[in-house]
Amino acid sequence: MPKAVFNPLVEMLAPPPIPAVQAWARAYDGAHGPLIDLSQAVPGYPPHPDLLAWLSEAAGSANLAGYGAIEGDMVLRDAYADHVSALYGASISAEDTHLTAGCNQAFVAALTAVAGAGDAVLMTNPCYFNHETTLAMMGIEARYVDCPAENGFLPRPSDVAAAITETTKAVALVSPNNPTGAVYPPALLAEIFALCRARGIWLILDETYRDFIAGGDSPHALFSEPGWQENLIQLYSFSKSFCIPGHRLGAITAGSAVVEQIAKVMDNLQICAPRAPQQAVAKGLPALVEWREANRLEIERRAEAMRAAFARTPAWDLQAIGAYFAFVRHPFEGRSSASVAEMLARDYGLVTIPGAYFGQGLERHLRVAFANVDTDQIAEVAGRLRLMRG
Amino acid sequence: MPKAVFNPLVEMLAPPPIPAVQAWARAYDGAHGPLIDLSQAVPGYPPHPDLLAWLSEAAGSANLAGYGAIEGDMVLRDAYADHVSALYGASISAEDTHLTAGCNQAFVAALTAVAGAGDAVLMTNPCYFNHETTLAMMGIEARYVDCPAENGFLPRPSDVAAAITETTKAVALVSPNNPTGAVYPPALLAEIFALCRARGIWLILDETYRDFIAGGDSPHALFSEPGWQENLIQLYSFSKSFCIPGHRLGAITAGSAVVEQIAKVMDNLQICAPRAPQQAVAKGLPALVEWREANRLEIERRAEAMRAAFARTPAWDLQAIGAYFAFVRHPFEGRSSASVAEMLARDYGLVTIPGAYFGQGLERHLRVAFANVDTDQIAEVAGRLRLMRG
Repeated sequence: MPKAVFNPLVEMLAPPPIPAVQAWARAYDGAHGPLIDLSQAVPGYPPHPDLLAWLSEAAGSANLAGYGAIEGDMVLRDAYADHVSALYGASISAEDTHLTAGCNQAFVAALTAVAGAGDAVLMTNPCYFNHETTLAMMGIEARYVDCPAENGFLPRPSDVAAAITETTKAVALVSPNNPTGAVYPPALLAEIFALCRARGIWLILDETYRDFIAGGDSPHALFSEPGWQENLIQLYSFSKSFCIPGHRLGAITAGSAVVEQIAKVMDNLQICAPRAPQQAVAKGLPALVEWREANRLEIERRAEAMRAAFARTPAWDLQAIGAYFAFVRHPFEGRSSASVAEMLARDYGLVTIPGAYFGQGLERHLRVAFANVDTDQIAEVAGRLRLMRG
Repeated sequence: MPKAVFNPLVEMLAPPPIPAVQAWARAYDGAHGPLIDLSQAVPGYPPHPDLLAWLSEAAGSANLAGYGAIEGDMVLRDAYADHVSALYGASISAEDTHLTAGCNQAFVAALTAVAGAGDAVLMTNPCYFNHETTLAMMGIEARYVDCPAENGFLPRPSDVAAAITETTKAVALVSPNNPTGAVYPPALLAEIFALCRARGIWLILDETYRDFIAGGDSPHALFSEPGWQENLIQLYSFSKSFCIPGHRLGAITAGSAVVEQIAKVMDNLQICAPRAPQQAVAKGLPALVEWREANRLEIERRAEAMRAAFARTPAWDLQAIGAYFAFVRHPFEGRSSASVAEMLARDYGLVTIPGAYFGQGLERHLRVAFANVDTDQIAEVAGRLRLMRG
């Protein structure tokens, strides 16, 4: 009998990277002290107790156990529109928002709304691996603009312009960047957005880590440009700021005409985002401003501790550090990033993600997510790195 | 400047049907008594108080606010594997399960794992509209096998065999059926499964409504066939049996090799299903067996009341009634199903879904979801239908 086959676009994808890295970590014997997990981009501190109470209350409600609106419950769309309006100094209405089950789903929904198999989307190298695998599984051609270390891991607008072809439907950027931590300056985003507008394509801008920009600056002024709705789809996750990745909640900000298309996609993908977290976060957005600001400052301190740790290990080159991530060049010429990351995890209890998981030409790099560990743990990093012999 | 465009496969989709139907209902003035909502497939009774307490407890846990395993938390995969094993008299292990955020997502994930743009999938006519729109948005060709009223809205195996072509990757069935309520006999499912196996393609079998089969019979014996893992992907939703659609939780049962491919898709779609409902349902699966059985009997009583209501309105032909739905032929020749459904909703406060939303040649039909209303409300349906003048 013939054998039923898988979709080759899915079959050819590597297994999800985080579980693979966690398997290396499980092999660590504790010889150098407790495991220091610098792999997953999660906050190491718990959600605010009030948020947990609101989550608990909403989850226990019979009323909220029913289906909600596809686009999201109005209470959170309103609260989120107010929040985005204040943060960007712009005028965003609830109709310009769509809630999702996390930011990966926001990316899938936004991408599906504007591109299909055979189209192309311009990404950066390095890039967030789930964006790359999402394009691959959907049969969308990924093209890449290089973000070289010597340019602060930022793309050059001239390179972006040169890489856009007739089949390119969108440019997908992540700022603050995953994996490098690089924060795209507002002027650079404005320049790339102008390019997208001139070429009649979309800018899909993932700002999952925007609440951790040093100084708490507004990320950009794109929402103040007249007619931004024609070309901009902006993505966000509540997972990091509210420490609730397990509840799966994200958001899209886009013109109402885009939201209308995305709602069709979301209806197919999962009808609506989970409702209890929508209700809880609607309360938390205004109520927990100071708590979030205190966390931002704590993450800044962790970044500072990370800089200090790498200053004491000159063989390791901290080439970029930003809102949530650092991107580090390891000292072992000729060794793959996976073999170095595996050794660090297994033998020294330092869990990082190999650079090669994020793109081409990155075998000398590791991604270090430092939100998950406190400054004391970070201080230990340097000592373990110095012990390491390739 | 050129205008940024949408994915034509999404743009051409009609807006999601449920909100459109609900808009008709909002125009009803109450002249004939309270609105009777027979549109959405949701249970009209609340979740069990113990389940609400477990949901509340889990949602308030800092520990469960973090990411979980892509495939799902092992506590529910184990409990669900036990449940499926018992229900089907088969031996299913946790590795043969994958949790999702509802059954629409289970369908998207399963479909993506086995088919891509340019492939074909064989569906039934009528079919569940979200399956059809999912195929359309993914660029997968939908082919249809007819399920005529005179055959109890079931497909004939010879028609299925004739409709499978070289590009067909899967047959997608829903039993108990949405929209007709038809319950596919185990022998029919076995015959279609054998066809799929002979042709080397997948059977994707959505059993969202299986817990409401009259008599509580086991739905089929496919999981007892040696090597079922090579061709079967079975989908389920916890939304209906546990009354928690707002929490978004579903499950896939498939061989571990299939689960491995689906995990790659799910990682892109949303990393993991929401965790609090996983923990709560893991407790509810064994603990709330009697409550679910009582609900099954209540839904049977509602089906009986629905039969009685239509027996008193002979102009309306109840052509099929099953686990959750009835499929009714309206008396107004030459009128579209949408115009009849709109009139019923606006003028008589009876909200149904037009047959045409489910496929070709169904302008004379309406889908009636009766789980949402109690037997007293159902008794009123006949009176309102008799008032109606085309």
